[in-house]
Amino acid sequence: MAAKLKAAICGASGYAGAELLRVLHAHPMVEVTAATSERSAGMSVPEVFPHLPGYAGITLEQLDAESLAGKADVFFMALPHKTSQPAVAELFRKGKLVIDLSADFRLRDKKIYELWYKTPHTHPQALGKAVYGLPELYRSKIKKARLVANPGCYPTGAILGIYPALKSGIAVSKGIVVDSKSGASGAGRQADPRYGFCEINEDFTPYAVASHRHTPEIEQELSVVAGQKVIIDFTPHLLPVNRGIISTIYLRLSEKIDTASALSIYRKFYKAEPFVRVLGEGQIPSLKNVKGTNRCDIGLKANPRTGSLIVVTAIDNLVKGAAGQAVQNLNLMAGFPEDTALATPALHP
Amino acid sequence: MAAKLKAAICGASGYAGAELLRVLHAHPMVEVTAATSERSAGMSVPEVFPHLPGYAGITLEQLDAESLAGKADVFFMALPHKTSQPAVAELFRKGKLVIDLSADFRLRDKKIYELWYKTPHTHPQALGKAVYGLPELYRSKIKKARLVANPGCYPTGAILGIYPALKSGIAVSKGIVVDSKSGASGAGRQADPRYGFCEINEDFTPYAVASHRHTPEIEQELSVVAGQKVIIDFTPHLLPVNRGIISTIYLRLSEKIDTASALSIYRKFYKAEPFVRVLGEGQIPSLKNVKGTNRCDIGLKANPRTGSLIVVTAIDNLVKGAAGQAVQNLNLMAGFPEDTALATPALHP
Amino acid sequence: MAAKLKAAICGASGYAGAELLRVLHAHPMVEVTAATSERSAGMSVPEVFPHLPGYAGITLEQLDAESLAGKADVFFMALPHKTSQPAVAELFRKGKLVIDLSADFRLRDKKIYELWYKTPHTHPQALGKAVYGLPELYRSKIKKARLVANPGCYPTGAILGIYPALKSGIAVSKGIVVDSKSGASGAGRQADPRYGFCEINEDFTPYAVASHRHTPEIEQELSVVAGQKVIIDFTPHLLPVNRGIISTIYLRLSEKIDTASALSIYRKFYKAEPFVRVLGEGQIPSLKNVKGTNRCDIGLKANPRTGSLIVVTAIDNLVKGAAGQAVQNLNLMAGFPEDTALATPALHP
Amino acid sequence: MAAKLKAAICGASGYAGAELLRVLHAHPMVEVTAATSERSAGMSVPEVFPHLPGYAGITLEQLDAESLAGKADVFFMALPHKTSQPAVAELFRKGKLVIDLSADFRLRDKKIYELWYKTPHTHPQALGKAVYGLPELYRSKIKKARLVANPGCYPTGAILGIYPALKSGIAVSKGIVVDSKSGASGAGRQADPRYGFCEINEDFTPYAVASHRHTPEIEQELSVVAGQKVIIDFTPHLLPVNRGIISTIYLRLSEKIDTASALSIYRKFYKAEPFVRVLGEGQIPSLKNVKGTNRCDIGLKANPRTGSLIVVTAIDNLVKGAAGQAVQNLNLMAGFPEDTALATPALHP
Repeated sequence: MAAKLKAAICGASGYAGAELLRVLHAHPMVEVTAATSERSAGMSVPEVFPHLPGYAGITLEQLDAESLAGKADVFFMALPHKTSQPAVAELFRKGKLVIDLSADFRLRDKKIYELWYKTPHTHPQALGKAVYGLPELYRSKIKKARLVANPGCYPTGAILGIYPALKSGIAVSKGIVVDSKSGASGAGRQADPRYGFCEINEDFTPYAVASHRHTPEIEQELSVVAGQKVIIDFTPHLLPVNRGIISTIYLRLSEKIDTASALSIYRKFYKAEPFVRVLGEGQIPSLKNVKGTNRCDIGLKANPRTGSLIVVTAIDNLVKGAAGQAVQNLNLMAGFPEDTALATPALHP
Repeated sequence: MAAKLKAAICGASGYAGAELLRVLHAHPMVEVTAATSERSAGMSVPEVFPHLPGYAGITLEQLDAESLAGKADVFFMALPHKTSQPAVAELFRKGKLVIDLSADFRLRDKKIYELWYKTPHTHPQALGKAVYGLPELYRSKIKKARLVANPGCYPTGAILGIYPALKSGIAVSKGIVVDSKSGASGAGRQADPRYGFCEINEDFTPYAVASHRHTPEIEQELSVVAGQKVIIDFTPHLLPVNRGIISTIYLRLSEKIDTASALSIYRKFYKAEPFVRVLGEGQIPSLKNVKGTNRCDIGLKANPRTGSLIVVTAIDNLVKGAAGQAVQNLNLMAGFPEDTALATPALHP
Repeated sequence: MAAKLKAAICGASGYAGAELLRVLHAHPMVEVTAATSERSAGMSVPEVFPHLPGYAGITLEQLDAESLAGKADVFFMALPHKTSQPAVAELFRKGKLVIDLSADFRLRDKKIYELWYKTPHTHPQALGKAVYGLPELYRSKIKKARLVANPGCYPTGAILGIYPALKSGIAVSKGIVVDSKSGASGAGRQADPRYGFCEINEDFTPYAVASHRHTPEIEQELSVVAGQKVIIDFTPHLLPVNRGIISTIYLRLSEKIDTASALSIYRKFYKAEPFVRVLGEGQIPSLKNVKGTNRCDIGLKANPRTGSLIVVTAIDNLVKGAAGQAVQNLNLMAGFPEDTALATPALHP
Repeated sequence: MAAKLKAAICGASGYAGAELLRVLHAHPMVEVTAATSERSAGMSVPEVFPHLPGYAGITLEQLDAESLAGKADVFFMALPHKTSQPAVAELFRKGKLVIDLSADFRLRDKKIYELWYKTPHTHPQALGKAVYGLPELYRSKIKKARLVANPGCYPTGAILGIYPALKSGIAVSKGIVVDSKSGASGAGRQADPRYGFCEINEDFTPYAVASHRHTPEIEQELSVVAGQKVIIDFTPHLLPVNRGIISTIYLRLSEKIDTASALSIYRKFYKAEPFVRVLGEGQIPSLKNVKGTNRCDIGLKANPRTGSLIVVTAIDNLVKGAAGQAVQNLNLMAGFPEDTALATPALHP
């Protein structure tokens, strides 16, 4: 049996980091050999996350790219944006495989990054090498990449929901509305009274209206698909659940088309995709059917009264929206079967 | 001290009926004298609803309009649509004040009712006399009405959010999207495994996409406001919370206008309204701030990148969306101060 | 009409403070004239709590007992224990009515306070004057008191559930087990990742096993009732709900007695109590029936197989367990009808 | 590669049945070949459970033991008690491996079954052959069994929490209190308004006080361990979460022993157990650490003030409390590694 690939998780004490550990636990070709956390350095993984007893041998350490480089072959970077840049650039320079879950290498245009993230991008060279890690759009590039920018959670569900309609031309690229609702793990593991249980439980609210940083990321990819600049209205909302994102997307049809025909176009686009399921007519995605899985469920309905196509997508923000997609990207980069460690059914109820 | 007005609740064992009992408990000029329930006839109110011990003297009875008529002056009808029609018509004919919480008398055009509700409307005469009970639009008519059609929960939040923009002309009447999210009490008190705790908890999903029956009701009122036929995209979603509706509304601006100016227009429209609060710039409505209240909170933001105006409204579906608005209508019809029994702060957390 | 009593809330930016503001909003004889908060000083109440728009005129200020004394007649102190002591003592010395919601004046024995709270009690004189504010046990003393120590949330439900059984002698004072489960608002409004939404939602766990500070408070009052030292096992748990405490209490019967007889003893004890409801045989308390109310619901069952009496009590930890009981105490101290501002039904669902 | 063992699930449309399908999906030596459901016969598994797309090839059928017998080697019976008896007996008679998740074959004394379940036991012969499927107590018998009675969810957590204390003699067998709290999936997938989302969400309540049918099952096993008849107080409660049971257990120590020593005794008892984790001193079990796993977490604390030992156990009621333990039993019966398909970490958050 071949030696396992060694993996390090940088930023392992957040929810995305913990989810990487959970997903990789089932991966037969990967061994986690190091994990970093600034706030919990010196503790073992199960001391921070008692739900991960299998990692008793891993002690969280502070991030030092120099010393870390020798410990692993592939690096999952689950750090806040900006913090990510220097470590990613150095590990990439050292020839390591790097999958960055932050936003730092997703926007190909440095200026747009700096406009939305209000911070300079200090590693434009690495940026030029990064591949946007959405396998449904960039599978062949990902296979050859050494630096993958793992997509944002909202962009994953939004792009997968819109791509076939724009690519096929059944919808126009103007007037797109993406109304998304995310579970609270998307806000991270924070010490902030606004994210306290009593503040989110039994509540629901939009946030960052017309200003969320995932907007340019969605627009970047839709513009590639449409072959022209696409500008969208995007509104995220905070749901009182732990996991999952539903995106309700409003597109304007370019022609009269019924639901069955639109579904058949979507089904053609995704027929070979292991992690996209186009539902039957009359079926609507639901968070519970994707919880804990790497799948994106898609349902849609044409509205002949208004000329709209309403597309609904569901993903688990921590899996297809973060850790699962990162492992899917690793599988592609390393030549493993794409669904390794990712074929589990949803945990329902 | 004057004698109290006698009130009967028809359909008291559902959530809207129970909420009417809760709200009226604090009403100094109203006494509940009768309540009906087909499934729980013979039981006292606290046997069905232990949270309402103050109604130990009321025994639920079967609905018989004839005998009931003598027991009260005003009738709150919280029955399923269609079931409501004959009782409403008879009580109205007998000269009683009637506030109907069903959908039966909301759509002024009998044909549209029959198209969406798939059942004939058998009492067109009463329909002709009904006033749509949204005080912010029809206060003076409600004061003189004897039959009020209490608005649907979704229409209340949607119409209040759109009305000033259409009336003032800052938004056009085309391309309106209403994306609404409702707590589970909106589905009623049902014996259906799809509404079981484990099916809704930790889940979220749209339903009745492009086909919900509140669509024509919203369109009817927006068409009046706009002075032309308005067609909308409306998508309701089921939230894992007990109470509340957030509606995220996408309007297209007819001119360049910034958030502050749009807010100031909204504020002018609602300056004398006791139950509408237009929030400050940067503030976004949240369910928790309206839970248990009769208030509609409104926030908005202009998006100069897309030319959209994003309006967000929050109501408690059982109060401003049902029982509270019904009592507000009664207060108007009976000449009581409009906020009687309705001035309580939200229950948070 | 008589001038209203002026009230100040010290510690108004926590959940108990906010709940005092909510309850007092409905009080016709009390006007809130000042509110303090160290972390939010300078902000208006609705800026911190948008669910309380009625307090737009109150600006939170820093706590300065000297200057505050002139602004009100009665002071509700909702501060952390220890912090409370000097302000309480000074306001009491100045002749003000003081209702302290902290633990500082509940334990009559200074040594027991210092043992469990690990801090010296620096105001033993005021301690000697304080009355334990459980009206069901100390109503006549409270009426004459100027300093009331408002009971802890767990002790309220535990003592009310055990008192009649010990007092009547049907249960012995040994081997008492109190297993309590509290909603998350009991932990306060904190910036702590352990109280983040995702950590509490879908979770449940005991805490402070055999070491919670409410233990000596419960034991103090039970010892008075039993006429001998009572030691109990008390285990609190954290429930994923916003409000409410269920206490499941195991007592050992001193004689053979059936459920009906035990209930009739409880009913006799509480027959004149406005805020205790003894349920019928076969009925069990439920959080939803007390949410938002000042009531304690009690149900019980004798278990002839084991000789145990199982008593279950339900309260809203923020109302009967904190703010509501404080207002009940004020009503007694000021000679108002005891249920003023406290007669609202539960908010369900 | 050897042929897979063929498995049938009887009662596949309930939560335990669905969970069996979820767990077996990851089992490399087992293939599900049939599944039954009276209410959903004729539908495919993913039509009933869209979260299980991997079972598109399985059509639910009505339970007919005769025809079903030819389709599988092992039968998981997830039917209501009483309904289970004839099918279990017939399949057992035909020489099939049977794992019964109902209560029908758990109580070795037919009379006690009939007393608590109010129905005759019509298959005493099969009852005589059944082994109680708690591997921690009966591993060697299970390995040789052909009919295993899978333990109830509450008994699993209760017995594992009490067994070492009674067996080692550090606790006495009198005065045992088991206070258990279960997620709502324990109530099954029902059409009952009492289990509707709004009735359970934000609520909490005990039920079946001093009368729950799992009481004699716990007592049966504790009596074996203690070597004398054990009678307990057992109170189940309904938690507003989907999954998991916390049992807080009060035992009376027979001698002075501190927490560390008690823990070390527990650790010795369970040192070879793959699915029991005894936590460190000061650590308390939490539902989130066992969600989706087959593990039982145990924490405890000695209370020198009262002479009690407080033991807390956490399990996932659908896994270690039902489907996972059933698969653990199958692994033992079939000679597979005991943790096959059961080694996944918890899904948190």
